Amino acid sequence: MRIASQYRNLELIQQKTPLVVHITNNVTINDCANVCLALGASPAMSVDPSDVAELASYASALVLNLGLVDALSLEAMLAAGKAARAKGVPIVLDPVAAGATSTRRAASQKLLEELRPEIVKGNGAEIKFLAGQASRQRGVDSLDDEGLAEATAILASRYGIVVAATGPEDFVSDGQRTFRINGGTPYLARVTGTGCMVSSLVGSFAAVERDYLVAAAQGIAAMKLAGERAAGALLPGEGTGHFHIRLIDALSLLAPGDFNDEGRYSDVTA
Amino acid sequence: MRIASQYRNLELIQQKTPLVVHITNNVTINDCANVCLALGASPAMSVDPSDVAELASYASALVLNLGLVDALSLEAMLAAGKAARAKGVPIVLDPVAAGATSTRRAASQKLLEELRPEIVKGNGAEIKFLAGQASRQRGVDSLDDEGLAEATAILASRYGIVVAATGPEDFVSDGQRTFRINGGTPYLARVTGTGCMVSSLVGSFAAVERDYLVAAAQGIAAMKLAGERAAGALLPGEGTGHFHIRLIDALSLLAPGDFNDEGRYSDVTA
Amino acid sequence: MRIASQYRNLELIQQKTPLVVHITNNVTINDCANVCLALGASPAMSVDPSDVAELASYASALVLNLGLVDALSLEAMLAAGKAARAKGVPIVLDPVAAGATSTRRAASQKLLEELRPEIVKGNGAEIKFLAGQASRQRGVDSLDDEGLAEATAILASRYGIVVAATGPEDFVSDGQRTFRINGGTPYLARVTGTGCMVSSLVGSFAAVERDYLVAAAQGIAAMKLAGERAAGALLPGEGTGHFHIRLIDALSLLAPGDFNDEGRYSDVTA
Repeated sequence: MRIASQYRNLELIQQKTPLVVHITNNVTINDCANVCLALGASPAMSVDPSDVAELASYASALVLNLGLVDALSLEAMLAAGKAARAKGVPIVLDPVAAGATSTRRAASQKLLEELRPEIVKGNGAEIKFLAGQASRQRGVDSLDDEGLAEATAILASRYGIVVAATGPEDFVSDGQRTFRINGGTPYLARVTGTGCMVSSLVGSFAAVERDYLVAAAQGIAAMKLAGERAAGALLPGEGTGHFHIRLIDALSLLAPGDFNDEGRYSDVTA
Repeated sequence: MRIASQYRNLELIQQKTPLVVHITNNVTINDCANVCLALGASPAMSVDPSDVAELASYASALVLNLGLVDALSLEAMLAAGKAARAKGVPIVLDPVAAGATSTRRAASQKLLEELRPEIVKGNGAEIKFLAGQASRQRGVDSLDDEGLAEATAILASRYGIVVAATGPEDFVSDGQRTFRINGGTPYLARVTGTGCMVSSLVGSFAAVERDYLVAAAQGIAAMKLAGERAAGALLPGEGTGHFHIRLIDALSLLAPGDFNDEGRYSDVTA
Repeated sequence: MRIASQYRNLELIQQKTPLVVHITNNVTINDCANVCLALGASPAMSVDPSDVAELASYASALVLNLGLVDALSLEAMLAAGKAARAKGVPIVLDPVAAGATSTRRAASQKLLEELRPEIVKGNGAEIKFLAGQASRQRGVDSLDDEGLAEATAILASRYGIVVAATGPEDFVSDGQRTFRINGGTPYLARVTGTGCMVSSLVGSFAAVERDYLVAAAQGIAAMKLAGERAAGALLPGEGTGHFHIRLIDALSLLAPGDFNDEGRYSDVTA
């Protein structure tokens, strides 16, 4: 992957403070806003369908997260998504627990079909479900990540979109090229909402970078780098509470010059 | 109380990562998820009645918290509770501010009567109200904790359930035996949602321990131990912000071997 | 401004633990509760119209925040506001992103006209919009803070209320006297919800101080003082994550004796 643009993109976010509008879940909504601010973007959250559609129409990116989906939030997501679509605002869809219940299966497929988001970011079970493959999950957790690179490429190819899949290994694909993103830390799985935060970072990069494969990879790479730094900074007696805080610290201290992702991307195109 | 099982139960949580489904309030929902993860359980939050009923039907425990109750969340709690009941999934009810308003009086009594939760966990005023006693409260605070051990036993006995009451002193009862749980720190009252977090810990223990008196006691004991460690770890210049973070740190660092609750339980059966 | 009362007011909050009822947004609801607790007040959050109206009727202050406004929360705000009005409970309105969408324009004006809150606290664009002036904003951010002291005085004078405006410079006015509040730190703009937290602090002071110009100034001054201390306490490697935590630390460690606001208020009455 061409990554020369990465340094520029973090600089662009900090210069432009792009508006990243979210419909997200109330578990992680504070963290999603704070990671956008840490990176340099301007987050705005909304729930009312008319309100969020108006905000989305002049946003630089729209993030839709299914974490606490219900009939009202689905209506708001469709309204905001159509407003974004009409104005060329890129959409990031995070289909949380997509295959876990009939409500989520229906909502995630409806959003995928009707909005054709530029980027779908999910865990293994979510991506496999949307790719039409058997998937095993329990609540919000994926229980089977085998063959995930392939599922990522299949879903991307079928819809002509960019797909990012996170798990023990993370992948991004535009259906033609598929990359593994290296690094990270097991701590990221021990704080709720790190997956949601990745979607907010991906949205922030998509706000300034129209090569969405690059934007998705950079959002994930930024989270991995920050996670590695946060884990490395933990003092004796500090656990997941401090990892959470140090993760936001590390994102807020990322400088364009030190966002070195040398060796973070491996081409695994089948 | 037989506590030999306690070490085993923390180990079981960390081995099985049981699914603990929540309908809870948006004030403390992030903390509730994070304390479950810190302990080793797998939290899942949901709001849509059909979605949460489906999740509850295959959960290991269901936590219902009335903090921001309204008509929709009450409907979801009843749906999820009935699905849990049908599958033998234990229910923990946290009747936040139960007696403070007519909305909360009606909702807490309806959930208690219709679901007969395995465990009810509340503060003094909430437990007294549900026990049919005079109670004084203001907002979410209990203003009178006198005779709380007796009220705890009365409520437990009337419904044949386990009741846990927290306050200046904490009690658990199954209607026949009543125990005081010793220790803790005043800092726990200075961070919002520590009561909700206790309910999530109780739910995590109930997911692996079918003696619900033990599960309730262990959830409270884990919070007290973590609170003591967090308060003890505070550096000069650190206040309630850091206590909150160090509380989650301490929960995430609890190891089965050091979860020593020697002397934490006193039999106060009347 | 007469500030001799300030030391007394923090002492009063800590002695009386006044009930401060909120209808606020789910992005910052946890922080709003925690800053009230840090200061010494007793926060209670609610969403159901009937429930929150009942709570508001015996509260010491009511805080209404439009961050995630929709039809249901607007109904709840009107119900709670009328209950507060009937009992003489002071109301603080935070018209988040007031001019940014038609939903927010309508909701903020309706609440202002129907409730006549004792205090309106907003950023530059929000205050200018409510004052009937041209305003530029994007999402929740104000893009033009020129002439803000005048807009603050105009809005205060028109409704006979106290208005507080925050931005690069902060002002309070009762329409006759206008003060700039000095100090603060740029970090306050890099954590989501610091504006909402200010409204909760203002509500806590308004619960014990019936000179609402003083209450508004003190809430803002407390945040600035805590922000300065939090920024000064940051260690190498700490960023906005730790600033957030140290801000709550600093609020929780404010003692009546060291709440020195000497030189923090400048009379800028036109």
